[in-house]
Amino acid sequence: SFAFLRIHLHGFVSLDLQSCEGCDQEQNSVEKLLRKVEGRMKDLFQNGIKLVKSLPALMRGESVDRYLATADGRIMEYDFDEVLYDENSPYQNIKVLHSKQYGNILILDGDVNLAESDLSYTQAIMGSGREDYTGKEVLILGGGDGGILCELVKLKPKMVIMILNIDQMVLDCCRKYMRKTCGDVLDNLKGDCYQVLVEDCIPLLKRYAEEGRTFDYVINDLTAIPISTSPEEDSTWEFLRRILDLSMKVLKPDGKYFTQGNGGNLTEALAQYEEQLGRLHCPVEFSKETVCVPSYLELWVFYTVWKKSKQ
Amino acid sequence: SFAFLRIHLHGFVSLDLQSCEGCDQEQNSVEKLLRKVEGRMKDLFQNGIKLVKSLPALMRGESVDRYLATADGRIMEYDFDEVLYDENSPYQNIKVLHSKQYGNILILDGDVNLAESDLSYTQAIMGSGREDYTGKEVLILGGGDGGILCELVKLKPKMVIMILNIDQMVLDCCRKYMRKTCGDVLDNLKGDCYQVLVEDCIPLLKRYAEEGRTFDYVINDLTAIPISTSPEEDSTWEFLRRILDLSMKVLKPDGKYFTQGNGGNLTEALAQYEEQLGRLHCPVEFSKETVCVPSYLELWVFYTVWKKSKQ
Repeated sequence: SFAFLRIHLHGFVSLDLQSCEGCDQEQNSVEKLLRKVEGRMKDLFQNGIKLVKSLPALMRGESVDRYLATADGRIMEYDFDEVLYDENSPYQNIKVLHSKQYGNILILDGDVNLAESDLSYTQAIMGSGREDYTGKEVLILGGGDGGILCELVKLKPKMVIMILNIDQMVLDCCRKYMRKTCGDVLDNLKGDCYQVLVEDCIPLLKRYAEEGRTFDYVINDLTAIPISTSPEEDSTWEFLRRILDLSMKVLKPDGKYFTQGNGGNLTEALAQYEEQLGRLHCPVEFSKETVCVPSYLELWVFYTVWKKSKQ
Repeated sequence: SFAFLRIHLHGFVSLDLQSCEGCDQEQNSVEKLLRKVEGRMKDLFQNGIKLVKSLPALMRGESVDRYLATADGRIMEYDFDEVLYDENSPYQNIKVLHSKQYGNILILDGDVNLAESDLSYTQAIMGSGREDYTGKEVLILGGGDGGILCELVKLKPKMVIMILNIDQMVLDCCRKYMRKTCGDVLDNLKGDCYQVLVEDCIPLLKRYAEEGRTFDYVINDLTAIPISTSPEEDSTWEFLRRILDLSMKVLKPDGKYFTQGNGGNLTEALAQYEEQLGRLHCPVEFSKETVCVPSYLELWVFYTVWKKSKQ
């Protein structure tokens, strides 16, 4: 065990305590020691101490790592208690951890994607219950956790095409570990009113555009920051704009495009996204909504985009 | 600036970096240093490193402290950017901090009480939209932030009595800093259909019980762990049971009692609470609901309690 007491400028004193599991110095006695030091310092400074703050212990080197950062870089300690899946695909690291509160959580490259508690995410990216999907044709880009597809097929659409961008391992993992989210829709890649295609979405969108195939809804659930932008485009923003442009081409004139944006605090990134919306080949309008997704531990922004009517 | 590299048992290596604001070692160069050390270690161990994890920097001694713990003791970094109010009443420390995402947040003794974003808390403790309050008589215990009162008066109740337990400073603070939550209901302690009483709730409940005054709803929004249990009772649980017993006495036979429980992970505390419900003077039944309150950063449990019907 180690203790470091440091006296900084402006009367700030920091005390760092470190102990390892199994050492004599257990959590309980660490707290006792902290209280003792605090008491001594209060005596020493004769109640001249304005504020005392102690932080919960950070646990490093545990078999289940509990710390993740929000999109804006803040530390959050989750209640993870089990690693159910941890594999590297050719494209990314895929994890499913279990949280006592949120159930199983899909984590791609260290970013929380979706937990079993996060129906609010799926509802938000489907238009927050304001749409009637009955008899409609829908295109999902990404959505490998199966959440959107599972909720959509309940609403009697005419046909849902889901293009899982490249990484089939995500789908295989979610089929097994995210069943509260995807139900049984991922058990087969084809159902009465849906089809899942595992391929690169850009060439397919181009083909649809050329064929003149259109949809009532396009739901873009590709990760907030794309996994890879090459070889199609060399910048993330150009990739995003490419997807948007192609999506508008396959969208019916009165169709709607839904997508996630990013964390509510990332105002610059969101502004930059909105700027892209003004640079598409067809003029569009948009609205946004900020939603609480339980396992994200930060508010999340969702966009609705539609083509500007001609008159 | 300081750096501590430690080699622990079982091949775990920890590196702590500390720098102070204004030192040469800025955030940017700290990250550069981290990457450099990581690279060197990878060379040294010839790719024998299984996992590298770096945690966001913890900032201590800042003018706005950003760290709070959940009810189950996990560290959470908020996006606080301003201290609007920080005073000690005779009963507790009262703070209102501003969060970019959640708006103003009332914090009592270091526990997040309510943020302007937390309508879901108020809705949950009012029965999640399943009740019809029109023409009803309602008793609120606590609720000093004014959120419940503000939502209730919109629903045309016959009369709402709110007993603010002791600490008027909370009310004065919320009237000024939590207006998105309380609207103007705290501007006057009396309105057409409501009255706010600042007094100890136990003697008043006793008086109501003696007078035979009853309510359709009792909403207990006293803090999850009561501020003070003396002199009425000497244990927290006995205090809680006392409140429950008196509440049942002033509740109409088909009335409902709503209250917050605690964090969803505090299963022992919740079980203990449920045990209390079996020890009241009148037999009751209960249901519970787990709700996502945005600023809490953990799921929260709410209870509905009602008297068992005689037949």
